[in-house]
Formats: sequence, C-alpha cells, structure tokens
Amino acid sequence: MNIEHVLPSDIEKRSMEIIEEELGEIELSSEKRSIIKRVIHTSADFDYARTLRFSSSAVERALQALRQGCTIITDTNMAYTGISQVALKKLNCQKMCFMADPDIAAQAKTAGTTRASACMDRACKVKGPVIIAVGNAPTALLRLDELVRAEKIQPVLVIGVPVGFVNVVQAKEVIIKTGVPYIIAVGRKGGSNIAAAICNALLYTLTRK
Amino acid sequence: MNIEHVLPSDIEKRSMEIIEEELGEIELSSEKRSIIKRVIHTSADFDYARTLRFSSSAVERALQALRQGCTIITDTNMAYTGISQVALKKLNCQKMCFMADPDIAAQAKTAGTTRASACMDRACKVKGPVIIAVGNAPTALLRLDELVRAEKIQPVLVIGVPVGFVNVVQAKEVIIKTGVPYIIAVGRKGGSNIAAAICNALLYTLTRK
Repeated sequence: MNIEHVLPSDIEKRSMEIIEEELGEIELSSEKRSIIKRVIHTSADFDYARTLRFSSSAVERALQALRQGCTIITDTNMAYTGISQVALKKLNCQKMCFMADPDIAAQAKTAGTTRASACMDRACKVKGPVIIAVGNAPTALLRLDELVRAEKIQPVLVIGVPVGFVNVVQAKEVIIKTGVPYIIAVGRKGGSNIAAAICNALLYTLTRK
Repeated sequence: MNIEHVLPSDIEKRSMEIIEEELGEIELSSEKRSIIKRVIHTSADFDYARTLRFSSSAVERALQALRQGCTIITDTNMAYTGISQVALKKLNCQKMCFMADPDIAAQAKTAGTTRASACMDRACKVKGPVIIAVGNAPTALLRLDELVRAEKIQPVLVIGVPVGFVNVVQAKEVIIKTGVPYIIAVGRKGGSNIAAAICNALLYTLTRK
C-alpha cells in the first residue's frame, strides 16, 4: 500500500470525498449530512450514519442561534479544546467548560453527584442562548433533564453523545423524551471528540461557505 | 431500561467490569489488557481488542521510562488535554504539545508540510526520554519515521493511533517497520481520545496500584 501524495491543505477534502463515496445514499438534508460526515471524519466509524438522531428542526434552530451569537458549554475540557476557536470568533460565539473549577468539585462532593452533573447546574447561570455538548458524562444528561423539566434552563440544542457502559444508553433515551432540541448518538458510542466534531460541523456550515 | 444506581466514585469500576465481561478470553499481559480496556472505556468500541498491536517489550520499556520521569509529546491539544496531569505529576513526568505554537505554523508553511509534521521536528529538541503520542495526523508518523531513521530522535515509545482516510493505514504500517517500540491501532480508527487513553492507562498502571 503506497503513500498517497496529497497536499496538506487537501487532506480534509480528500477524506470527505472518501467518506461521501462509502456513505452512499442516505436521505438527509445537506446540513445533517455534513454533521454525519464530520463525525465519521473524526472517528472513522460509519456506525454513526445509523446512530445519530436529530430532533425536528434541531439543526436549523442551532444554526440560527450560532448566527446570532451563543455559548457552547461542554462537559469536558477535551471537547472544549476540540471546538474551533477561529470559527467561534467569526460568529461572535464562545465556548465554556466548568469541569476544572474548584467550586464544581466542592458542589459535586456536597451533593453526592458527579462534577459533570454540577456543571449543568452552573450552566443555568449562563446568560443568553446556550448549546450544551455532552461527550462524556451521562450524569450530565440526567441532570440536564431534571433542570429542563424544572424550567431552570432552556438550551437551544443538546448534543448528547456521552460514551460508555453505565447509564449511557439510558441517559440518551431520557433526553430524547425531555422535549429539548437534540442531536443524540444512540447506543454506547460517542465521546468528547464526537461532541466537538458535531459543534465544528455546525460552525463550519456557517463559516466555510 | 432503567437507570442503574451507581455511586459517582464507582462508575469507572462498574464500566471496567462490564468491559472485562464482554471482552472475554484474550491472551495478554495484565498491562496490555489494561490498555485495551481503557481504550474501549473511552470509545465503547471493542474493535480495538483486535486492532491494537504492541511491539515486543514496548509496554515494559515505556513504564520504566515513566517511572524515571519522561515527557509525553502529543500531536494535538485535545490529546494533550486528555492526559491526566495528576498522574503525570505523581511520576515527575510532563506533557507537551507544539501544535498551537506560531513558529510551528510558519515552519510548516515554509516546508510545505503539515503543522503536525513540523511538531515532530520540534520534538527532536526536547531533552530526556520522550513518548510520542499521535492521535490525529498520519503526517506526524511519516515524519517521525524519517527522523528516527536519520537518528534525530529515539523515542521510548511511539503511540500511533491517528484516525482517518488519507495515508492513515499506510503511516501505521510504516511505523511498525521503523524499528521503534510502538503501540499502534492498525486500520483507519484511532483519535486524540484513544491516544490520551493509552497514555493514561500506562500512567495509571504506575499510580493507581
């Protein structure tokens, strides 16, 4: 197998062509297709073409919010790091992650919960429209469900792609029933990289025209 | 499907039990098994039990280097962020990533290569033993092969788990032939999260006894 000679600037384009080719026919809007392609680009896992679920108008409403400026809140510093600062800046948007804040650890300990769950309580205090991107902790989604039902927060979009084996499948099912706009990867798979890829796909739809 | 009641502090333990159960019999040392389990923990993808390859004594030599203090160099800030700072500190080790340095962008432009490739040239200047962890850019592995052959760098271990569609499979095959100790995920799959998970599995083997 020989090395393909591709210019650095063309690697992503060539990757997307290969993904497009192997993905074949799926009936989806171009925006949803962009999201699925970017998730496959970041994972080389075509399972996501099958497992990514979008609530009605979720993508359109998220794009609208990003156009007007909003805050993306992640559950991990890895997801935070993966979201394009250049694209956020172009749109006057910002990203936040509270995971490493000392008061979050203290609050989680007091409440007998996870830091990720405490981060969702903290997210309620953020002014303006928010997108919540969860790539790691199902406990964040479960707490978010409670907070949305109690009308403490009304996210523009919940990206629910935690990965794992304990309550991950269940937490995603819970969010699908919560009544918030969502992009969910059903099943066990997901991750901080997947959460960041979905955010970037949305951002690039607006910034890379 | 009901929510399992698991204490926050027990979620990882319970996850590892489920992975252990589903993984079944594989003939591996406990250290390699720990690495595979942590990679599955971070991806929910059992493919890695099949695709992770270890060169002879790679794990033992990496553990030895970490015990004596060494530097882990990553190709992305996401992988960098994912590596446990707490564990590194306990072992007097450190992590580095040059990706966002302005001079790296300039060097890559001049050389007509990628920033990840330029980062490997920069890695040659780091004093003391180094582990190179590549979760994203196959071009980093291809440059690393050249630098090792030219005796510019002699990594204790190369973690070669870039993800993608252009030269990813090939770059991993190249590193297997380079003659450096390696942990490689053959095929297209990998990622910054996988690179960080392998580093953390090594670190936790020493710090979580």
